Amino acid sequence: MITRLSQLFVRTLREDPADAEVASHRWLVRAGYIRRVAPGIYSWLPLGLKVLAKVERIVRDEMDAIGAQEVRFPALLPREPYETTNRWSEYGPNLFRLKDRKGGDYLLGPTHEEMFTLLVKDLYSSYKDLPLTLYQIQTKYRDEARPRAGILRGREFVMKDSYSFDVDDAGLEASYQRHREAYIAIMNRLGLEFVIVQATSGAMGGSASEEFLAIADSGEDTFVRSPGGYAANVEAVTVVAPEPLDYADVGAPQRIPTPDTPTIQTLVDRVNAEYPREDRPWTGADTLKNVVFTLLQPDGKRTALAIGLPGDREVDLKRLEAAVAPAEVLPFGDEDFAANPALKKGYIGPESLGENSAAGVPYLVDPRVVTGTRWVTGSNAYDTHVIDLVAGRDFTPDGVIDVAEVREGDPAPDGSGPLSLARGIEMGHIFQLGRKYAEALGLKVLNEQGKLVTVTMGSYGVGVSRAVAAVAESSSDERGLVWPRELAPFDVQILATGKDATVSDFAEKLALELSAAGVEVLLDDRKASPGVKFTDAEILGMPTAVVVGRGLADGLVEVRDRATGERTELRADEAAEQLIALLLP
Amino acid sequence: MITRLSQLFVRTLREDPADAEVASHRWLVRAGYIRRVAPGIYSWLPLGLKVLAKVERIVRDEMDAIGAQEVRFPALLPREPYETTNRWSEYGPNLFRLKDRKGGDYLLGPTHEEMFTLLVKDLYSSYKDLPLTLYQIQTKYRDEARPRAGILRGREFVMKDSYSFDVDDAGLEASYQRHREAYIAIMNRLGLEFVIVQATSGAMGGSASEEFLAIADSGEDTFVRSPGGYAANVEAVTVVAPEPLDYADVGAPQRIPTPDTPTIQTLVDRVNAEYPREDRPWTGADTLKNVVFTLLQPDGKRTALAIGLPGDREVDLKRLEAAVAPAEVLPFGDEDFAANPALKKGYIGPESLGENSAAGVPYLVDPRVVTGTRWVTGSNAYDTHVIDLVAGRDFTPDGVIDVAEVREGDPAPDGSGPLSLARGIEMGHIFQLGRKYAEALGLKVLNEQGKLVTVTMGSYGVGVSRAVAAVAESSSDERGLVWPRELAPFDVQILATGKDATVSDFAEKLALELSAAGVEVLLDDRKASPGVKFTDAEILGMPTAVVVGRGLADGLVEVRDRATGERTELRADEAAEQLIALLLP
Repeated sequence: MITRLSQLFVRTLREDPADAEVASHRWLVRAGYIRRVAPGIYSWLPLGLKVLAKVERIVRDEMDAIGAQEVRFPALLPREPYETTNRWSEYGPNLFRLKDRKGGDYLLGPTHEEMFTLLVKDLYSSYKDLPLTLYQIQTKYRDEARPRAGILRGREFVMKDSYSFDVDDAGLEASYQRHREAYIAIMNRLGLEFVIVQATSGAMGGSASEEFLAIADSGEDTFVRSPGGYAANVEAVTVVAPEPLDYADVGAPQRIPTPDTPTIQTLVDRVNAEYPREDRPWTGADTLKNVVFTLLQPDGKRTALAIGLPGDREVDLKRLEAAVAPAEVLPFGDEDFAANPALKKGYIGPESLGENSAAGVPYLVDPRVVTGTRWVTGSNAYDTHVIDLVAGRDFTPDGVIDVAEVREGDPAPDGSGPLSLARGIEMGHIFQLGRKYAEALGLKVLNEQGKLVTVTMGSYGVGVSRAVAAVAESSSDERGLVWPRELAPFDVQILATGKDATVSDFAEKLALELSAAGVEVLLDDRKASPGVKFTDAEILGMPTAVVVGRGLADGLVEVRDRATGERTELRADEAAEQLIALLLP
Repeated sequence: MITRLSQLFVRTLREDPADAEVASHRWLVRAGYIRRVAPGIYSWLPLGLKVLAKVERIVRDEMDAIGAQEVRFPALLPREPYETTNRWSEYGPNLFRLKDRKGGDYLLGPTHEEMFTLLVKDLYSSYKDLPLTLYQIQTKYRDEARPRAGILRGREFVMKDSYSFDVDDAGLEASYQRHREAYIAIMNRLGLEFVIVQATSGAMGGSASEEFLAIADSGEDTFVRSPGGYAANVEAVTVVAPEPLDYADVGAPQRIPTPDTPTIQTLVDRVNAEYPREDRPWTGADTLKNVVFTLLQPDGKRTALAIGLPGDREVDLKRLEAAVAPAEVLPFGDEDFAANPALKKGYIGPESLGENSAAGVPYLVDPRVVTGTRWVTGSNAYDTHVIDLVAGRDFTPDGVIDVAEVREGDPAPDGSGPLSLARGIEMGHIFQLGRKYAEALGLKVLNEQGKLVTVTMGSYGVGVSRAVAAVAESSSDERGLVWPRELAPFDVQILATGKDATVSDFAEKLALELSAAGVEVLLDDRKASPGVKFTDAEILGMPTAVVVGRGLADGLVEVRDRATGERTELRADEAAEQLIALLLP
């Protein structure tokens, strides 16, 4: 069947959408693949839906190939199971909640661990039934604080989520590895340049997890890599604590006046000028910056948290959010300082902090703040600092928190060399959940010895609608979309340019021949100028275009490769045969 | 690829679900096709999902065949467009409403007229762009007061909805007819015995609509048919008003004492005994029963409505609901009577009713109550009736309402003979919407004369998940499901019965041969008794079962037809070939 552009429900737009920040958003909207309905909520137009269906097919293929079985849960779910695992409240404002006509509490599922656990509990009871992997390709909902970039981070989106059920840890490890291989296959078929990184498990819980990131400057995730093969989401990077230092020779701490030192650098310059170190100059890394945040717990409770870290680094908010989840991080504002007069803004020192201090604010420090390290830090009085304050001698924090920014060149925690940073789009996430959900919801089976044991689970997600955006992100240029063959809505776009009936007749005949051979053909049969047709073909982004126009008088048609820009002439009478060979390899 | 029952995520259940009233609900749950999550909310297990996918494919095929283009809208929709058409409130408690984190109002889409109208308005502007038909196969939500019968009437369900856009009425008529043909094709491919009936448009609005009902005793819809071809949903049946009667000879109305006449029959007997008619005896059809209801408007306002109808008929609540939608019908209770002392319960007469009466209750009568008809009715005083009260002489109602029950044998309104009643499941509904939505939302295009005209629309729905239930309803027996070939999850179930390795080896080999030829095979390779396997095969309902067992020693296998129960023996060495011929016609 030929699709005719004169009939196809699509309009290319000359203008970028007002809120478009990234290429995929711009081009998917301008090319008429998707259309915005509300913030983070989009409709799929015919071309977009075709790409989405192709992504779904790839994901389904690879899941079926590892023996996963497809099911489909509702999106509208009752509160109770999520209450049992505490996620009803832990999800906070990210969860869409609603009531039915009888006042019953429901949610729109953001992920389905609870439901799958209950389903397996419902039907299975023996180790003989395991291992089992179930999956669904389904619409999910998250009330993102900042939906952005079109379908890259939406509030309604399509995900493949799967869940493995095993009787023991070795089984889980095997199920996890099978998924890992399937995800590699999916990423490769999608044509994405990707990296697998260590990740944090966040609200999902569980022991180990990895993310599949499509490498893209527009990605929201920052990750690090080392020459020796370390790779992690920046939220999962751990700083290796240095050995404790001998502080026998360090003098007693000394309060010093430091007016007019509004920045770390001015402070460092002042102490180097007036209180020089004997061994080397002070640097920003010798200052201990104490920053206070407010944590908003899911139950609405607000608490303060102080973090001490070397002054040459900032707290990385995303690392902090990951570390304190499900609590939300808010600024510690002027009114908070007013309520805590012991905390002198800009001059907070360790002595005013800690659970046992007057203010009672828990005090966690960066792993680099080990016993014996010697600091320039706040003295809890305005315009005054203290030097030679030694960790483990002069102050003892409540614990360690690893949330300082990770920088280009920092050493990899596994000793595999200096880290480099890049950005990516989270395309997949695989979790070894372990027994968290099975325990909470009572999923046990009889093992070989006839003893009831709790099942161990994995949870695995791929962003299906997001994949369309991720591919568009890497497969577009300044003129429009550039689909890889496996995902293009059509294999070829035939442009009939010229008003001569022989042109349109030939284009029609060629389209029919290709279509009969199984090629998916989009025929631009519109009454429009060649310029409009060329421009639209580049925006729509089919991998191959065939121009039937002036050359036809000389027995020639032109083939254009969208990705390379290469143009080839074919003899019109051989065009069908050669195109079929090219397009159906 | 062979699916092995030992691996398949399914468990057949020996017990009916507690709330199962109909066959499809019972068997889809017991055979492990679906599983309940909440009232009216179900999960699809692997077997069920396969059937659902086959229904989807049929629907998609037939929609594509009439040139409809597939798109997909979100289920989570903003309030504004539904506010514009008033359906945000008209849907009343049937709509799932929710707020996002910013307090914005959203709904879960029950149907998408508004969204499609806006999409077309967004992209199209000329008569040259039309006709256009768009469709989606998508999850929809309605907060039914009484979800029932499993997936037959759910609160989350899959629908195909399509929308046609035309520049004029002739175009709409053509689009409507194309859909009608497509729906006939769909019903036939689903193997459903169905009837197309006239229907009411209800909250949808629009001028003409027809329903496709699958004939089933368990159906919620009652429809009528006449020998001459009339067919209508009972809600859409219209009573033809008789000609006015000459009442010149009828005496003045007369109040009569009627204590101890608790029923229509006792009243009729009394008047026949004491006040006989000159021409014929009084019958129940000569009594005028006045019934009062409370209407609850979507905005929460409560009003009363009085209905006068011949006493031998009841008000049909579903007809009444259809007539007064979007208002809800509630009883007129004792406290309502107390608040309206002019209305004497059991003795309400026309004189106390009407917009201009003291009580001010609007009074609508059955179409049979024409001018000149002569009634026995209430006198607005207890234990007293009035006879010879003549419509048009002694009382004048505010209007007509056609909500009396329709009875077997009533004449068809088109004169095509007596009606018979039956029940059905609403599988499809096609509407000529006209310009209601286009007008409300401003969808106009330039016509051939360069003038802006409002587009005219049609709206068309098929219950996709409901189709699975409707087919199961007609395709099941006392032993389980009986799938038609086009919808069965697998073409054949092979049962290896017996512990001998030659049995399982042969079954495996046969499965592989069939599968290689393209037959979808379910192999029962479980360690279970023949009895369990036979029973399960009947519950699961594949159209053909092949038993590989004792007969194999004599070179034979047995083929069982699930629908007819017929058993045939095949030579084992010819079984593959013959089964392929049978299963892949």
